[in-house]
Amino acid sequence: MASTEPEKTATPPEAPAPEREKMAPPPEALRPESKAPGYFVVADLVLRVLLFASTLTSVVVMVTSKQSEFFQVSGLRYPVLVSTKFNHSPAFIYFVAALSVACLYSIISSLLSVFAILKPGCSTKLLVHFVIIDVLMLGIVAAATGSAGAVGYVELKGNSHVGWKKVCHVYDKFCRHIGSAIFISLFASVLLVLLVLLSVYSLSRKIPK
Amino acid sequence: MASTEPEKTATPPEAPAPEREKMAPPPEALRPESKAPGYFVVADLVLRVLLFASTLTSVVVMVTSKQSEFFQVSGLRYPVLVSTKFNHSPAFIYFVAALSVACLYSIISSLLSVFAILKPGCSTKLLVHFVIIDVLMLGIVAAATGSAGAVGYVELKGNSHVGWKKVCHVYDKFCRHIGSAIFISLFASVLLVLLVLLSVYSLSRKIPK
Repeated sequence: MASTEPEKTATPPEAPAPEREKMAPPPEALRPESKAPGYFVVADLVLRVLLFASTLTSVVVMVTSKQSEFFQVSGLRYPVLVSTKFNHSPAFIYFVAALSVACLYSIISSLLSVFAILKPGCSTKLLVHFVIIDVLMLGIVAAATGSAGAVGYVELKGNSHVGWKKVCHVYDKFCRHIGSAIFISLFASVLLVLLVLLSVYSLSRKIPK
Repeated sequence: MASTEPEKTATPPEAPAPEREKMAPPPEALRPESKAPGYFVVADLVLRVLLFASTLTSVVVMVTSKQSEFFQVSGLRYPVLVSTKFNHSPAFIYFVAALSVACLYSIISSLLSVFAILKPGCSTKLLVHFVIIDVLMLGIVAAATGSAGAVGYVELKGNSHVGWKKVCHVYDKFCRHIGSAIFISLFASVLLVLLVLLSVYSLSRKIPK
């Protein structure tokens, strides 16, 4: 019993402390409104670095998809060596070109985003220019994802109506690479949508009510 | 010499007239700044009506692409009847679904744009919402254009590396329809990019310098 009493007496002097903490938060310099534009610019930079990482990964995964296999053709006694790589299909060539452009753009725009963090004054004009090129990049990357996805789907499933055979049972590693690259570029498309929405939201906050 | 003198004396009284014309232009009601938001909303409506027309045309052209042909197969004495339509390929089914959604959205957004012309007060919130859905639609329509374009290209040229034969020499009308639908949906993608840029430019004009 003697050990609990000091605890009870200890509580009253601690009571004013939470009240002091409640009073502390609203100093004018730390209000969320004054910090918010900074958060937007940092979020923009993080998204752009993620865009760089995803587009680079996607291009590397697509380019390293070369595969050679021994394949038993009906009518021949010995299996023949067949090989495939991404540049056998124009859709994959366009995919690599589009994602490379997006990767290059993500490097440039990340540097500009760092510049905007260091010099907060010129952000409105930069935001408008970011939105214009982000929207164009979104169109290019989404079209590349769609075209590579369509060809990849025919490779996986074939199309009996027009007599196109599936090839993924032979080129298993190739198809895994193609599928991964398409999935990562879908993620890059989502990042570009988020970047446009972030810029537009950031612009709309600057309009007086 | 007598004929040139009246011309010289005539010039001084005409001199004040150009000065009056120079003074006339700046009445406050006709300044371009006060008329500009109205022009933006009308341009927005025109682009949305064009988007409706192009997506509807694209869907109709794709859906009416059915073709049946007599085709001479090697090894058979008589030609066989072969037929194709858009829903033999998953890429074209996705194309029709995506463009139909964009068509429906263009109807709804045109009505909202008319509403914005009638009630100019609530345009800022509407613009932000327009940009969000326009960007998503752009991603969907661009991916649909890319996937249909990739499959259409294989139908036109074939792919000797994976053994896919071209079919456009048999299905000529079908391929013309597919190509036209893809071209019109590319136009719809450009319209969506323009709509996003118009909204962003319109938002950026409302920010005080």
